[in-house]
Amino acid sequence: MTAHDSTYRLLYRDVDQMGVLYYSRYFELMEMGRTEWARSQDFIYSDMEKNDGLLLAVINANCSYKASLRFDEIAVVRTSVKAYTRATLCYYTEIFEQESGRLCAAGEVELGCLTTDTLTPHKLPDSFMEILRRTAPDGYGRRKRT
Amino acid sequence: MTAHDSTYRLLYRDVDQMGVLYYSRYFELMEMGRTEWARSQDFIYSDMEKNDGLLLAVINANCSYKASLRFDEIAVVRTSVKAYTRATLCYYTEIFEQESGRLCAAGEVELGCLTTDTLTPHKLPDSFMEILRRTAPDGYGRRKRT
Amino acid sequence: MTAHDSTYRLLYRDVDQMGVLYYSRYFELMEMGRTEWARSQDFIYSDMEKNDGLLLAVINANCSYKASLRFDEIAVVRTSVKAYTRATLCYYTEIFEQESGRLCAAGEVELGCLTTDTLTPHKLPDSFMEILRRTAPDGYGRRKRT
Amino acid sequence: MTAHDSTYRLLYRDVDQMGVLYYSRYFELMEMGRTEWARSQDFIYSDMEKNDGLLLAVINANCSYKASLRFDEIAVVRTSVKAYTRATLCYYTEIFEQESGRLCAAGEVELGCLTTDTLTPHKLPDSFMEILRRTAPDGYGRRKRT
Repeated sequence: MTAHDSTYRLLYRDVDQMGVLYYSRYFELMEMGRTEWARSQDFIYSDMEKNDGLLLAVINANCSYKASLRFDEIAVVRTSVKAYTRATLCYYTEIFEQESGRLCAAGEVELGCLTTDTLTPHKLPDSFMEILRRTAPDGYGRRKRT
Repeated sequence: MTAHDSTYRLLYRDVDQMGVLYYSRYFELMEMGRTEWARSQDFIYSDMEKNDGLLLAVINANCSYKASLRFDEIAVVRTSVKAYTRATLCYYTEIFEQESGRLCAAGEVELGCLTTDTLTPHKLPDSFMEILRRTAPDGYGRRKRT
Repeated sequence: MTAHDSTYRLLYRDVDQMGVLYYSRYFELMEMGRTEWARSQDFIYSDMEKNDGLLLAVINANCSYKASLRFDEIAVVRTSVKAYTRATLCYYTEIFEQESGRLCAAGEVELGCLTTDTLTPHKLPDSFMEILRRTAPDGYGRRKRT
Repeated sequence: MTAHDSTYRLLYRDVDQMGVLYYSRYFELMEMGRTEWARSQDFIYSDMEKNDGLLLAVINANCSYKASLRFDEIAVVRTSVKAYTRATLCYYTEIFEQESGRLCAAGEVELGCLTTDTLTPHKLPDSFMEILRRTAPDGYGRRKRT
């Protein structure tokens, strides 16, 4: 299971009046993590939308909150693929504070592949499947277990 | 189990390039739903912070996405309390599109009561416990089941 | 000059660690104000996009900040059209805190009409021009003065 | 006038249904630019809040929109200080698309220094004034001209 780390420094816009990252913002960091994970494997998500007419729509998302992230701290977003099928995949993301290394949150986002025009389920592009086989070798056919 | 409906009309700021409500925004609607649910029971969350020195911090959050919400549509956010203990509670929220009535998403958010100054776990205020007993009579002592 | 008031209660997501509405969020309230101003004149912005293939793109925006808006307070967003031409218009918005009536911010947003497909400048729909003539009778041909 | 470039790759969360950066988001990029400009001068904004009990509150903000920024493009945020007094300063920011170099927006944000506890106007910290003198040598005493 190949994980990729991307980073983001928290702005004023990201924190609430308790001075900590607002809970829905963790899902935005997970989006950044997913895109950068794919890019680290030479897969450009925006090209898939443009060239293949396919998109990934979120089916399920969850997050478990363990510690706070504060203004001006750097979030390390560690992303990997936990499981996949021919038409869905499930990312697993851990979010750390960079300096202390403390784990702040962990979550999963399950996505399904759809055609851009009719939003019909569709199998993932072959090039993406190859990446999934390479980076998450035992994942094929496994669905997210809850 | 007493549910409360609040509504929100989607703005341009809320939708992504597929023209649908971005996935983390559903958690923002759930926040609106929680605050308005409490207000409908004459409990003002901001007063709890100011007068009791207590806040509610999110422990877990999840959402299951079933259909899209589009720009200018009205989201109906149906909120109730699913379970609670002396120091935690779990909200259950369903989000519908108003005109068609279609269910777009359902999710749970579990919160823990903390002191504002030291962020130490603390039991919920008595006035809030009374509301929980009245509106979710079987919930005491039950935790969120997953 | 016909003004329209719409309201929005501030959520946790809207305030920063000083407990006040984050400065870019005022522009989101102005978007709400513009849409609701048009709706109050029976003009549905989303219909223009769908039926006329036209959209309004922001050319300039400014805001002057005078007082804070806090969590759980209600913003009153007072919107009117300050000036317009055949293909552009300029909204003027004041944002008040409802209970005290204090003025928190005032700003202008100038928009230009474009075709949805090629993003070419285009004159505003006739039905919208009629509303502009009725609600801002002296505005024709006037541009925003700074 | 010393300018500093910081970069940000656009996420799905940032773009609206036209596929372009939503207009209020430009002000969030400007916030990133301001913080990183100060950091490039070894001034950490969050330390000022913690150690000096001072904050910078936005007084005026404006943005002129010239071209679109799209999903997955990288915004280059070029920030400098245009003018300052003993207790206020005005940033000037240009936002470019990295690959093409096209100018997408330009704007100014004027901020005033306040005490964190009573929100009373206060002169800027000496260490910050030194940076302003060094990087914007002609700016002292000049206010933003509109």
